[in-house]
Amino acid sequence: MFSGRFDQLVQALRILPSVGPKSAQRMALHLIMKNKEGALNLAHALNEATSFIHECNICNSLTENEICDICLSAERDDSLLCVVESPADVMAIEQSGSFRGKYHVLGGHLSPLDGIGPDEIGIPYLIQRLSDGKITEVILATNATVEGQATAHYVVEATKHLPVGMTRIAQGVPQGGELEYVDSHTLSQAVHNRMRMK
Amino acid sequence: MFSGRFDQLVQALRILPSVGPKSAQRMALHLIMKNKEGALNLAHALNEATSFIHECNICNSLTENEICDICLSAERDDSLLCVVESPADVMAIEQSGSFRGKYHVLGGHLSPLDGIGPDEIGIPYLIQRLSDGKITEVILATNATVEGQATAHYVVEATKHLPVGMTRIAQGVPQGGELEYVDSHTLSQAVHNRMRMK
Repeated sequence: MFSGRFDQLVQALRILPSVGPKSAQRMALHLIMKNKEGALNLAHALNEATSFIHECNICNSLTENEICDICLSAERDDSLLCVVESPADVMAIEQSGSFRGKYHVLGGHLSPLDGIGPDEIGIPYLIQRLSDGKITEVILATNATVEGQATAHYVVEATKHLPVGMTRIAQGVPQGGELEYVDSHTLSQAVHNRMRMK
Repeated sequence: MFSGRFDQLVQALRILPSVGPKSAQRMALHLIMKNKEGALNLAHALNEATSFIHECNICNSLTENEICDICLSAERDDSLLCVVESPADVMAIEQSGSFRGKYHVLGGHLSPLDGIGPDEIGIPYLIQRLSDGKITEVILATNATVEGQATAHYVVEATKHLPVGMTRIAQGVPQGGELEYVDSHTLSQAVHNRMRMK
């Protein structure tokens, strides 16, 4: 429609998550007709980000430098390590403001059927990080999915020989959750992990 | 979070319609971690589209050339003109496959409170196009909104002196519409505009 370059833009927008053909068309029209400046700015930001952002050499999260700001920070607790699946999880935990230690990004979860074993998610490197004695507690914050749980359990087993405490983030009813609508597995976890109030 | 360039990319993605802060973050992470090639391709497509796509000199729709393919086409009926508000509407009607004439894009609708009068949406140019005698029927396909209706009525009044037939696209119950859920204004239009079957 309209021109080859218009169609190319629509196709290029389709790679964005949850953008279908209709949304891509709407986005393309919006950019060309109402915000050419924004479109050029987005093109520039995409080029810059893809050129300069890469994995941190220590925690595997994202950074523009050799080592990310969190790993470099002297104000964060070096003895506390939070293990997550992806940089998106680092972002989510940071935005919750609930953690002041360092991170370790696995880059995925164990999934034997897809050929993703301990080596693929860098378990040997995690063990190496835990071996220097600085870290005293590891918070396993992999997803509360079957794969995330399996990965957490695997990490516990694989690091049994190290004198490091291991905790798992709590599972239970989410904030604002009405019991009527919470799934039964979550509810049974919430009852099982109940906390004493008095 | 992560780096300045990451935040810039998130901000740049926010200009896309219906993309909020969370979606923009998800898009940025997806592009950087899973599809750098797609991101570069998108940047290229944005640069190309903003440089080369502009309004057609005849119908005001979008094209890469002086005159768009539809205006140039010898296979389309020159005597039939469809008046729409925006290039998105041209696209929608083309995709319906229901029209084989030419188009005229107003670039908006009358909105006196916003200072948009007949001159701002090029009514004089439309009258000029209709004056050469080639066009015998105008289909008014402005939106079925208050402003779109007012614009259609204005075009009819403004071209009263010209020997050109004017029709308005039908209003009624949409395909698949269950009467129970159709608003009462639409339903009253559908009853009023009922068509004889026998």
